[in-house]
Amino acid sequence: MSRIDLLARLETARAAREEAGLLRRLRTVDAREGALRRIGERTLVDFCSNDYLGLADHPDLVAALTAAAGRDGVGSGAAHLVSGHHREHAALEEQLADWTGRERALLFSTGVMANLGAMQALLGAGNVAARGASVCVQDRLNHASLIDGALLAGSRLQRYAHGDVDDAMRALRAEPDRGALLATDGVFSMDGDVAPLRELAGICRDEGAVLYVDDAHGLGVLGPRGAGSLAEAGLSQADAPLLMGTLGKALGCAGAFVAGPAAMIDGIVQFARTYIYTTAMPPALAAATRVALTIARNDTEGRRKRLGIHIARFRAGAEALGLPVMPSRTAIQPLLLGDPEFAMKAATRLEDRGYLVTAIRPPTVPAGSARLRVTLSAAHEADQIDGLLEALNAAIGAHP
Amino acid sequence: MSRIDLLARLETARAAREEAGLLRRLRTVDAREGALRRIGERTLVDFCSNDYLGLADHPDLVAALTAAAGRDGVGSGAAHLVSGHHREHAALEEQLADWTGRERALLFSTGVMANLGAMQALLGAGNVAARGASVCVQDRLNHASLIDGALLAGSRLQRYAHGDVDDAMRALRAEPDRGALLATDGVFSMDGDVAPLRELAGICRDEGAVLYVDDAHGLGVLGPRGAGSLAEAGLSQADAPLLMGTLGKALGCAGAFVAGPAAMIDGIVQFARTYIYTTAMPPALAAATRVALTIARNDTEGRRKRLGIHIARFRAGAEALGLPVMPSRTAIQPLLLGDPEFAMKAATRLEDRGYLVTAIRPPTVPAGSARLRVTLSAAHEADQIDGLLEALNAAIGAHP
Repeated sequence: MSRIDLLARLETARAAREEAGLLRRLRTVDAREGALRRIGERTLVDFCSNDYLGLADHPDLVAALTAAAGRDGVGSGAAHLVSGHHREHAALEEQLADWTGRERALLFSTGVMANLGAMQALLGAGNVAARGASVCVQDRLNHASLIDGALLAGSRLQRYAHGDVDDAMRALRAEPDRGALLATDGVFSMDGDVAPLRELAGICRDEGAVLYVDDAHGLGVLGPRGAGSLAEAGLSQADAPLLMGTLGKALGCAGAFVAGPAAMIDGIVQFARTYIYTTAMPPALAAATRVALTIARNDTEGRRKRLGIHIARFRAGAEALGLPVMPSRTAIQPLLLGDPEFAMKAATRLEDRGYLVTAIRPPTVPAGSARLRVTLSAAHEADQIDGLLEALNAAIGAHP
Repeated sequence: MSRIDLLARLETARAAREEAGLLRRLRTVDAREGALRRIGERTLVDFCSNDYLGLADHPDLVAALTAAAGRDGVGSGAAHLVSGHHREHAALEEQLADWTGRERALLFSTGVMANLGAMQALLGAGNVAARGASVCVQDRLNHASLIDGALLAGSRLQRYAHGDVDDAMRALRAEPDRGALLATDGVFSMDGDVAPLRELAGICRDEGAVLYVDDAHGLGVLGPRGAGSLAEAGLSQADAPLLMGTLGKALGCAGAFVAGPAAMIDGIVQFARTYIYTTAMPPALAAATRVALTIARNDTEGRRKRLGIHIARFRAGAEALGLPVMPSRTAIQPLLLGDPEFAMKAATRLEDRGYLVTAIRPPTVPAGSARLRVTLSAAHEADQIDGLLEALNAAIGAHP
């Protein structure tokens, strides 16, 4: 028999990655507190998490989780549409809709599930006959789950050059008859820059396309009351109907939501297989997220302000040192190195000095653009940022 | 411009569902305790959750969640491969591998993510060139996420008649050159029957295909020490290399895992986009799941035994009443009604009598096979089961 052995093929592909020095390796964090991570015998300052507001171990979140688990247990026990939809989920959905200025919000267990599900509904409408009847126009640097969402929905996928509104327009005009969704990250996860949302909303309006924004890295960080990149751009639900946000980054919990017009959200309920055929997230997590949302929204603790000061401090310091910063004003502050091996070496040097920074290599980023993805958090102290800058200078300063 | 409006199309599709009486509606559970659910002013006995061992609100799980959140906070803050992989995740993975008799286990945030990710790695090997080079042979009643996994991986999808080993064999033989994955639910989620795993393992061995079993509804319920349908069938890792299990059903928490040979699991780490590009589940949830696993495995509280007694009691009672039970020996005990409208009416009648049972209608199940999906749990009391039988008899007994 000439059948290909899938296990052997996977093992070969894995070995090729190892050969190329691109194998991904798991590290285990033994304990954490604020921005500190204990790994084995060492304590490192984490500059790679997405806990932008430092809420992940906030005592009020822990208290809310604990209280809700005491009342309602751990697991939800069922899908939302069966008996797993709990008062805490409903209350969180209302708060999310209110915060983001959208009519209704719908919880998903992860951002990946939210993107896949929303696209199943919007591009496929639950109808196999609809496959191929739509085009999904996407920024080339969009998150993997947006790309996968278009593939799974059977939509024609057209990618445009990063942040290039004219190229996006060309892609839409090339498909004048198909229903069109234009999907973009609000803040790009590996670059930290913000999408040209006002311009994209403009071409969507002109071309009759639906704008879908994945604001995983903007929510809680950008805009008035931290309502995200769309709020910062002054784009209402009428301009940008669909917004996806995650709850495991600035909000320090886990899960995600899609927000938009009520009729459309109910359409997603009907047709998103990743919503229908999965267990609802634990109600206690929703309870913790409600507290996180209130802290993030009102910012009574000045966390967003503190993050902004850290970002300014890091950029000023990095520029003074001539470090290869990228054009980002968000919590994601990558340093472009190019060579993956050098990026790995730099990460190791930083770790030797007590700083945990992830080297991001192809295929996560395009070939030739390996980088250190530094992320900042309100959990950091100013002297930790200064220390990181010094360590970065020693680790990569000499590099051309 | 003649472009289709995606929002209008979704709204039309939703209206058609409503017209057909097939609209899915959310109900909010206000409070829960054991098998009881308070919805508004009423308290109902839940006979539709997947909390088969009644662990979701077990005090030991709540205590573990609380203790771990006190130590480590709520959110993990990052992807596993960045800085989100915590000691609690690693310890749970070890326990899961040991329990299921597999070399290594890998956590995912949901079963959907696990199935999509494992298939991305196995069928695509992260390589676009691999698209279409494989065939994925699946039982017609498999969970939606297995079907979607094959679609997303770009594999050729071949479905065989439910539980029909000969048909599965024909599907494999029709594609002698492609790498082949045979995927099946261990226990079918809407029917409750168990796949013919020994026979399927046999044809996979003969045909050089990889067997992949989604044991979401078998883990914790079937087999020695509750290790699932593969353990019950006496199939080791050599016979059935890949096992997916979920943590939000019998274990009462949330999340999922894939278990198998270490090299293969590491291949999944490298190529599963739903593993790489997502935030790790909260470490505290992993801590609660570890406790659930120990309770389920050792069954010192006799929960599995109690569930078995409930299943026997329900089936004996239903058969005596001539209710349309299906051939299931698991916690999932559907009653086949056929007509979706009648199934809805029956669910309403049951609710009037204090029992929460979901009517399952197309497209979740094939046309003409609408049913009441009764699920049993160790959280039930014998008199609740007797009461349900009486109510079922009144609600559907007269139906031909």
